Amino acid sequence: MNEINGNMRTIQQISAVRAFVHAARSENKTIGFVPTMGALHEGHLSLLRRAKSECDVAILSVFVNPTQFLPNEDFEQYPRDLSHDSRLAQEIGTDALFSPSVEEMYPNGCLTTIDVPDLSNRLEGALRPGHFRGVATVCAKLFHIVQPHRAYFGQKDYQQYKIIDRMVHDLNLTLTVVSSPIIRDSDGLALSSRNVYLSQEDRRVASSLYKSLKSAEALFHEGENDAEKLEECARSLLRKESLIQVQYMELVDTETLDPIKTVESKAVLLAAIKLGSTRLIDNIILSRNVEGNHSKSNGANHN
Amino acid sequence: MNEINGNMRTIQQISAVRAFVHAARSENKTIGFVPTMGALHEGHLSLLRRAKSECDVAILSVFVNPTQFLPNEDFEQYPRDLSHDSRLAQEIGTDALFSPSVEEMYPNGCLTTIDVPDLSNRLEGALRPGHFRGVATVCAKLFHIVQPHRAYFGQKDYQQYKIIDRMVHDLNLTLTVVSSPIIRDSDGLALSSRNVYLSQEDRRVASSLYKSLKSAEALFHEGENDAEKLEECARSLLRKESLIQVQYMELVDTETLDPIKTVESKAVLLAAIKLGSTRLIDNIILSRNVEGNHSKSNGANHN
Repeated sequence: MNEINGNMRTIQQISAVRAFVHAARSENKTIGFVPTMGALHEGHLSLLRRAKSECDVAILSVFVNPTQFLPNEDFEQYPRDLSHDSRLAQEIGTDALFSPSVEEMYPNGCLTTIDVPDLSNRLEGALRPGHFRGVATVCAKLFHIVQPHRAYFGQKDYQQYKIIDRMVHDLNLTLTVVSSPIIRDSDGLALSSRNVYLSQEDRRVASSLYKSLKSAEALFHEGENDAEKLEECARSLLRKESLIQVQYMELVDTETLDPIKTVESKAVLLAAIKLGSTRLIDNIILSRNVEGNHSKSNGANHN
Repeated sequence: MNEINGNMRTIQQISAVRAFVHAARSENKTIGFVPTMGALHEGHLSLLRRAKSECDVAILSVFVNPTQFLPNEDFEQYPRDLSHDSRLAQEIGTDALFSPSVEEMYPNGCLTTIDVPDLSNRLEGALRPGHFRGVATVCAKLFHIVQPHRAYFGQKDYQQYKIIDRMVHDLNLTLTVVSSPIIRDSDGLALSSRNVYLSQEDRRVASSLYKSLKSAEALFHEGENDAEKLEECARSLLRKESLIQVQYMELVDTETLDPIKTVESKAVLLAAIKLGSTRLIDNIILSRNVEGNHSKSNGANHN
């Protein structure tokens, strides 16, 4: 079942991943892990490159996890192209690609669920109830299977990153959860496997989302601290595009995701829009002390 | 902070347990783990002896976990005597006693919860909503800290055992969850740390619980398969004791905990009573094929 693709192992069985990881760990190698749903783009590849540069062994998982899709969502349509993903991963020097079947991951269904309600029941979670439960649960499963030292997540899914990071701390998992900067197309649109759903016209308009976040950031750097004004700045730009429906545009605490009224030193502006039947999300960290979005989190919630 | 008690290490810090476990595992030693809330009795000690006989290293945890107590329950009153527990564990040859503080286990609270709703929302879980969420979550934390090969649970808490076992399978944890037979006083009362709450009169009456289960078992071995009749047999015996209030007496599937109408080859009769303000639970496995309660589970739910 398992193949060697160049130097990359392609593995479908949990037991084979465990054996691979066990061998690596017994040689004191560190393991970097990038969990994905496949349809790899430069965002994923940036995570893989970072895993490869920071760890001895880089493992990619490709698994379109059914439990994180709502009944009305795009589980069936979600883009799948494993041979393409495999080639890209191989080119980067990924050491192992784990692509289990649904049957392998859920041989008897899954009665067990992991939740981080305080972080999950808002923003994306309010619009996609149960989504983060599926994400947290499958990530815990994958962490138990792959046993990484470091797991890499894109900042694009900021709420997801914070939920996984909190879960790892709360449950005393030993890995480090790493968030990596958003990778964007030349017009600013955050890369997403779902961008392929966009029509040509929607695609042209989609870049307004990032422009709206940047306009709020510019206002912030002019000295504006009021959350409502910063949100309204971004919203007003999006209102000019009749195709865009804003689902949320909220400035929240970077750790608790609680809405804030005034930005002290740092906050994150989280946004979701609908373009036709496609949802797009994006975010920007507003911070007074450092340039860009790469500053260390303030650790308000846990050390 | 950490002491050596004879040959037994007494550890309060998570990092020190990790170091202890890491050293043992790097010598290829197997680790047996007995998680408890302390107030050790022969039931706990039987688990420790088994852990010691089946594994190279036996680790005991003593932690009265606040998150599994309901607000109206006995968290404050729960019996605590760590020096007594420590002496007993030491005599048996326990290698390490982990007794963390609440602050050590929940330094930032715990936003993350683990649930197995289908197994948790009934029987004990219906009477103690949220209890099994606390149990499952703290067990996952302890498993991540102690990283045992085998974890030992008493059959007395049958529902708890099934929930933990299912969680371990569902989340791809690598340990084996072992259930060990109920240890009883000479009159049949299942040992429990909460038995100390019983008044002298309640204590005398308490043995009726096991007698009621044994009477149902006797009827079963006479050929009775009808769940209602078997339950009524046990209930009728308990009705003779005016001090006893039956909370549930249910014959259920050994894996799914679903109520059954007719016993095929095997089922478990689960009971809870109230005696004054004290709750007692007990159970008995009814099985046609094997003597006693030690038969392998039928694996209806997972392999």
